Amino acid sequence: MEAKLQELKNRLAEVDDLGHANAVLAWDQQTYMPPGGAAARGRQMATLSRLAHEKFTDPAIGRLLDDLRPYEESLPYDSDDASLIRVTRRQYERDTKVPAEFVGALNEHAAITYQAWTEARPANNFMQMRPMLETTLDYSRRLADYFPGYDHIADPLIDFADYGMKAADVRRVFTELREQLVPLVRAITSQPPADDSCLKQHYPEALQRQFGEEVIRAFGYDFNRGRQDKTHHPFMTKFSLGDVRITTRFNENDLGDGLFSTLHESGHAMYEQGINPAYEATPLADGTSAGVHESQSRTWENIVGRSRGFWEHFYPRLQQIFPDQLRNVPLDTFYRAINKVQRSLIRVDADEVTYNLHVMIRFDIELQLLEGTLTIRDLPEAWHARYESDLGVTAPDDRDGVLQDVHWYGGIIGGAFQGYTLGNIMSGLFYDAALKAHPNIPAEIAQGKFGTLHGWLRENIYQHGAKFTASELIERVTGGPLRIEPYITYLKTKYGDLYNL
Amino acid sequence: MEAKLQELKNRLAEVDDLGHANAVLAWDQQTYMPPGGAAARGRQMATLSRLAHEKFTDPAIGRLLDDLRPYEESLPYDSDDASLIRVTRRQYERDTKVPAEFVGALNEHAAITYQAWTEARPANNFMQMRPMLETTLDYSRRLADYFPGYDHIADPLIDFADYGMKAADVRRVFTELREQLVPLVRAITSQPPADDSCLKQHYPEALQRQFGEEVIRAFGYDFNRGRQDKTHHPFMTKFSLGDVRITTRFNENDLGDGLFSTLHESGHAMYEQGINPAYEATPLADGTSAGVHESQSRTWENIVGRSRGFWEHFYPRLQQIFPDQLRNVPLDTFYRAINKVQRSLIRVDADEVTYNLHVMIRFDIELQLLEGTLTIRDLPEAWHARYESDLGVTAPDDRDGVLQDVHWYGGIIGGAFQGYTLGNIMSGLFYDAALKAHPNIPAEIAQGKFGTLHGWLRENIYQHGAKFTASELIERVTGGPLRIEPYITYLKTKYGDLYNL
Repeated sequence: MEAKLQELKNRLAEVDDLGHANAVLAWDQQTYMPPGGAAARGRQMATLSRLAHEKFTDPAIGRLLDDLRPYEESLPYDSDDASLIRVTRRQYERDTKVPAEFVGALNEHAAITYQAWTEARPANNFMQMRPMLETTLDYSRRLADYFPGYDHIADPLIDFADYGMKAADVRRVFTELREQLVPLVRAITSQPPADDSCLKQHYPEALQRQFGEEVIRAFGYDFNRGRQDKTHHPFMTKFSLGDVRITTRFNENDLGDGLFSTLHESGHAMYEQGINPAYEATPLADGTSAGVHESQSRTWENIVGRSRGFWEHFYPRLQQIFPDQLRNVPLDTFYRAINKVQRSLIRVDADEVTYNLHVMIRFDIELQLLEGTLTIRDLPEAWHARYESDLGVTAPDDRDGVLQDVHWYGGIIGGAFQGYTLGNIMSGLFYDAALKAHPNIPAEIAQGKFGTLHGWLRENIYQHGAKFTASELIERVTGGPLRIEPYITYLKTKYGDLYNL
Repeated sequence: MEAKLQELKNRLAEVDDLGHANAVLAWDQQTYMPPGGAAARGRQMATLSRLAHEKFTDPAIGRLLDDLRPYEESLPYDSDDASLIRVTRRQYERDTKVPAEFVGALNEHAAITYQAWTEARPANNFMQMRPMLETTLDYSRRLADYFPGYDHIADPLIDFADYGMKAADVRRVFTELREQLVPLVRAITSQPPADDSCLKQHYPEALQRQFGEEVIRAFGYDFNRGRQDKTHHPFMTKFSLGDVRITTRFNENDLGDGLFSTLHESGHAMYEQGINPAYEATPLADGTSAGVHESQSRTWENIVGRSRGFWEHFYPRLQQIFPDQLRNVPLDTFYRAINKVQRSLIRVDADEVTYNLHVMIRFDIELQLLEGTLTIRDLPEAWHARYESDLGVTAPDDRDGVLQDVHWYGGIIGGAFQGYTLGNIMSGLFYDAALKAHPNIPAEIAQGKFGTLHGWLRENIYQHGAKFTASELIERVTGGPLRIEPYITYLKTKYGDLYNL
């Protein structure tokens, strides 16, 4: 058994090496690669993906998993070895259903589409993307069809990102949430809007970077095992548990852009940096779902980074770095500015309260596209219609409409968005549990100390990596299933105070 | 035949993708990787190397090469297809002689040795390296022994880098060259030394970088298909013909360090950027030998970049960028400073004239070690003795003695050094041929124009990639074999003028 487990680990390490090599290529593609490198890079990444897929779906792995079943069953469910075998088997059964050639072709298509999108978006040219997006939809449906027996065609795609969730589950939770959010948004937006002009001054990039890095270092992001670079679209990527990087962008005319994206990505990164090092180079060395991952980024970006306590400590430091811009701006004005709620066009710039409405629009549209009740041709119109009905805003063009998010232009259609709102809900759930264990956390945050919160998250979430599913993790941490109440209470309390509701 | 050639190309592209992915990982390792990434990165690179070797030595490639022989023989020798088959076969026959396990073990040993050397050199601790270096020598001999029938045990190792050259050939050329160099060095060093204090002022890094990039852009280095980053040791690396990068380092107290390393690496890079794009992802898309590669870097670094004509154009610009440092330094003083000849200890800092003596010491020592006429135990003494007899200088320790070059500590012993001096010789030979075709090149250089020289090199050297061997290329360009006269004439003319010999 010992030998078979070791052979499995060796094979998984090889797959892991190919996957993480590919992550380095992707990171370079978006940070430093000169334009001339694009064509070959797409091919190189397709080759590595294909080889990783071939190696992972090798029948020898299937035989090892079968041989190891008695050993797995002799162990406690939550032991490392049993979990490794269980999680590997789940992924193996998923990946062996999809032919390697399909994966290669899809990745190649995604690379070309992404490249085209980087030009089509600034040019407001949806027409150029239409045929590619039709192919993407076709690929997405074909991918789902490798998993017959689903209730909804989106289910397999949702399952990739948020294992165990189905379209119907997500719809149910989203419906509950929408019922709470719509009146909250209405109440807030019936008040005079917050003045966020203090954020829209000139903030030199280098100083923004300095402040952001000070904050995430204080949070507990380890720069010996990571770094921050600049990209068009911020992201977190991992090359090993010892090398978890983030990227950000800076807008010299809007302090919030770079700062909150840095805090956001640091949350993703601290999750990965906190995984048990014994899991290195196995499928356990990964966040367990898109939703849980997002819960960690939103915890640090919003629950901590947009809290009044956090800024009681950090605002004087920010004023010191930007004296001309902030000397005469009181803390309360700044706090209201970074928590301004407004019905707007751009998801990534949206506030905590309306953000989820942006996500629900995309989630619903994905389902319609996959069902075939909406065509790519009609997509821009459908997008505009939903923004008008749900958010009461009208995009002047497709650049800030259907072209705004990278997701559909760099992967598949389906499964990409629900995790954002599931993450918000979970961030409220987990933070509530942390407060129950350590009621002193808010007081510590107001002193610029994050050790208790970071320690609780490491202990309860980070270290487990992919050992437990999202549902299992929620059950272990809260003693029950996913529920929206703590998140809604958090929003209502915070924004009730802010807007005197 | 068409189908078999295409299958060969597909397989070669896969090998190429793995190799270039590995190059991205190596580049990142030396530019941006945080310390925590080191352990996993070594494993990832070993995996990619192993897979590339497995894929390239797959017997299916051997069968394709056999099947394609009649097709190859039906084509002109210099046709692209015949050349692809011929060069691939040569590399296939070489690589299939060495077992994959041996390559893996050697690479692992090299990685550990390199890591130890990075600590042993600053600590001046050769004793620590001795057992590892003995293993390296053992590996080097075993590697050579996979190629029985050699005249000298170094021949197979020299062949890896400079295909077609044997130890005896190199010795003959080096002996001829030494007979010319020794009296030249004696004549120069009997004169008062040049004053290079103007280079040893404070030169801010950002401005050094700006000037260096202006120069190489003027040379013809294409920043749309490349970029420059900072590393401890400068190098050129290629991820595809559209992405050929260089690295440099800056010493704020020595202008020459960063500038000439930038010019040097740009020469390597322009060679790769100039290869026929039709060769992408095949063994033809590569420089043809270490010597030819070095000839291109030395052409731009020395023949162009240390010429008086070049500085007639660029010195006023340099003075404009560094007015405080250079306002009162005449062109002639600067020109003499960048061409200062002195007997010194460090190869990479050596001037054009003495540089080759450093190389010959290492070449001779490599042969002795491989023959067994010198032991690793006696190596430091032998090194010091040769520096005293050949260069008249004594290193105070091993740090600036036998520990100074990375080569033996990051690979094998043998074949690593001869290319540097072969390259210098070829740079003289090729430049002489370019001048015969275009006598106006020096006048253009003095106007800051490099198009004719760059065009001639692209036409005669770059575009061919690895299609022709070094000897074939020299024969095509000069109508004869490798000879030292043009290089010697270049040195004697330039340094005769400089030192009034």
